[in-house]
Amino acid sequence: MISRVLSAELKEHAGQRVTIAGWVHRRRRLKSVSFLLVRDRRGVSQVVVPPGTALPAEESVVRVTGLVRSGTQAPGGAELTGPRIEVLAEPAQAPPFGLYRPVVPAELPVVLDHAPVALRHPLLRAPLEISAASVAGFRAALDRLGFTEIHTPKLVASATESGADVFSVDYFGRPAYLAQSPQFFKQAMVGVFERVYEVGPVFRAEPHDTARHLAQYTSLDAELGFVRDHRDVMAVLREALAGMLEAVRLRAARAVEALDVALPEVPAEIPAVHFTEAKRLSGEDGEPDLSPAQERWLSRWALREHGSEFLFVTGYPMAKRPFYTHPDPARPGHSNGFDLLFRGLELVTGGQRLHRYQDYLDALAARGEPVEPYEGYLKAFEHGMPPHGGFAIGLERWTARLTGASNIRQAALFPRDLHRLSP
Amino acid sequence: MISRVLSAELKEHAGQRVTIAGWVHRRRRLKSVSFLLVRDRRGVSQVVVPPGTALPAEESVVRVTGLVRSGTQAPGGAELTGPRIEVLAEPAQAPPFGLYRPVVPAELPVVLDHAPVALRHPLLRAPLEISAASVAGFRAALDRLGFTEIHTPKLVASATESGADVFSVDYFGRPAYLAQSPQFFKQAMVGVFERVYEVGPVFRAEPHDTARHLAQYTSLDAELGFVRDHRDVMAVLREALAGMLEAVRLRAARAVEALDVALPEVPAEIPAVHFTEAKRLSGEDGEPDLSPAQERWLSRWALREHGSEFLFVTGYPMAKRPFYTHPDPARPGHSNGFDLLFRGLELVTGGQRLHRYQDYLDALAARGEPVEPYEGYLKAFEHGMPPHGGFAIGLERWTARLTGASNIRQAALFPRDLHRLSP
Repeated sequence: MISRVLSAELKEHAGQRVTIAGWVHRRRRLKSVSFLLVRDRRGVSQVVVPPGTALPAEESVVRVTGLVRSGTQAPGGAELTGPRIEVLAEPAQAPPFGLYRPVVPAELPVVLDHAPVALRHPLLRAPLEISAASVAGFRAALDRLGFTEIHTPKLVASATESGADVFSVDYFGRPAYLAQSPQFFKQAMVGVFERVYEVGPVFRAEPHDTARHLAQYTSLDAELGFVRDHRDVMAVLREALAGMLEAVRLRAARAVEALDVALPEVPAEIPAVHFTEAKRLSGEDGEPDLSPAQERWLSRWALREHGSEFLFVTGYPMAKRPFYTHPDPARPGHSNGFDLLFRGLELVTGGQRLHRYQDYLDALAARGEPVEPYEGYLKAFEHGMPPHGGFAIGLERWTARLTGASNIRQAALFPRDLHRLSP
Repeated sequence: MISRVLSAELKEHAGQRVTIAGWVHRRRRLKSVSFLLVRDRRGVSQVVVPPGTALPAEESVVRVTGLVRSGTQAPGGAELTGPRIEVLAEPAQAPPFGLYRPVVPAELPVVLDHAPVALRHPLLRAPLEISAASVAGFRAALDRLGFTEIHTPKLVASATESGADVFSVDYFGRPAYLAQSPQFFKQAMVGVFERVYEVGPVFRAEPHDTARHLAQYTSLDAELGFVRDHRDVMAVLREALAGMLEAVRLRAARAVEALDVALPEVPAEIPAVHFTEAKRLSGEDGEPDLSPAQERWLSRWALREHGSEFLFVTGYPMAKRPFYTHPDPARPGHSNGFDLLFRGLELVTGGQRLHRYQDYLDALAARGEPVEPYEGYLKAFEHGMPPHGGFAIGLERWTARLTGASNIRQAALFPRDLHRLSP
């Protein structure tokens, strides 16, 4: 590697001559002195330059050797003096906006059009650091619980969840579809590994141009067998969330600070309210689902009554859940399916699934659906499946909600939507 | 959860009455006694059943409560006696072959057609356990080196690597393609995070029906900036491989034992030979690439001369590498690109990339290629990119090679190929 000290370590080298390397974050020319701010993956270092020296343009890649002086007012408490500056690569273009500005001086479309360079802005990079940490925490929590990671096909012969909103692919001359979820595969793999998770892309051809829809997003999927019912799934989800937040705290502290994110506490047991009770509390309207306003109200209620930013709503009506949902044996018409609300928004959907082959046939018959399109799906259940359930967390939705982003695109690397297919 | 003891822990409960749960792996009826073997995610437990008792069919999901007797000849050194057996789910179909057989008594097409149940066979599940452990080790090694995980778009507006062999997608009425690699995105993200990796699906519409081709595979991609040249990339790859093998040793010991896999040692420095020397050694034939026979010969040579199952071949001719490859400044016509050979096969391709915008324009011009299709790709390089490089490991290829599988499909969960799109 190019031998260098990272900005965060500069202070430890006080009195030594060291080399740093990174991008020119900002040039500042004062009367008696100039400063070069050099950005690397750990932060920004200040270089003190004699007045009148020619300074490389912003976003030049530079290597700077100099003497470390500590105890100054420089960022990080140390700066580089008496520098020798070498330019490793000159930019051919200026960035679309000043990457050093404390507030991003550009609208979202400009940011997205110029993502490769715009994401260098510390405030635009920060959500992605929080996203990466969250995924690491998700995996670590499930690894501790004996889960096995899987990688499932994204090309499928028929639509898993519903016929609509799938992307079609020309698969060697015959039709195929992009998987909307790994639902079938993760359930089938409960028969092999008992507990599985997958972190991977899912695809939704939803023709909605909103702040909440992406055509591709990263789904954190988990599925586990030998559950008593959905409450065991909820307990694992609680562990996953706690692991995600712990990892964000440990691995993305700088991003959390930059965005001024208040990380929520995950209660030892996340409060849960039954759907009928949730409706009664938030205003019965006869609808078989919660409205966005009701979700917001319930979130405020959970914070007020239980001190929790998370709230489970259980027992959703069967009519609003997919056919593979396990009914609540004690409450006809209601399911062992749940949603997790976080800060006013549904963040996770999950529940217990049917596990007996005959129950699948009966469920399809009850809905008046033919068996044929689901034959491949049902095959796994012919061979003995334990009671099981699972959940899926949308990574971008989680990150956006956690960081307070107003648009889910701020939590994706290169978002894909109805209008956007590049960069 | 269903309260239970896992098979691997049974011995610790000698003398106690415990409950186990899992699948009926095998029924064995002897004259004076019957045995029920129950499989769970940690192994198999033996249950001693009085003769004449009705036994649930293979692959029934059962819960069994009984007294643990240790010091027997049962697998794991303990067995369950005086059992109460409860069937949680009955199979509607017998498996296509006996999942308890010590050798898989079925050809690959049968296995693949019945993957959801066939993969329950311990020998068919084992490669996937090794695969999962490898990925965990890959991430852990790169996390230690300050890499950031990214998730990039799988839907792209133009083909990244080449115009051929891409799957086309109907993207809201306009054409899009499935990404053949995250090459562009990971390079661009070096400008943001310096060091990035991605574990995700890539898609190749290669119309080849061989034991080595998959239409979707899992690519372990890494890219890092501030390298001196390709040798820094090779050093990181060495760490990644060592991490993968360490994780396989720790996390997939049972699978390694079941498959009788000899895990290779990763030398502190993997031996490297220049392409011209590799050609001279293995038989110069005037070709700008290594033949499969030459790769096998070189692997044997490396083992003999250097005691290493891994060998780097560096300095491949520029003519055989993609346009973004960095040339070797000291040897015209040769590149700073490398391959890693492992047990006779090319396992990893990598190298240093161009990092200056003008160099990209020149490289395209030299090849007589238009700039226009690459404009999105080149944009990242307009804004100052450090010297960088990276590599990609095909997960299924790695797992197949490590486990000695004759067909790459044995290392994939639900392989996709020219003819196969389900299950």
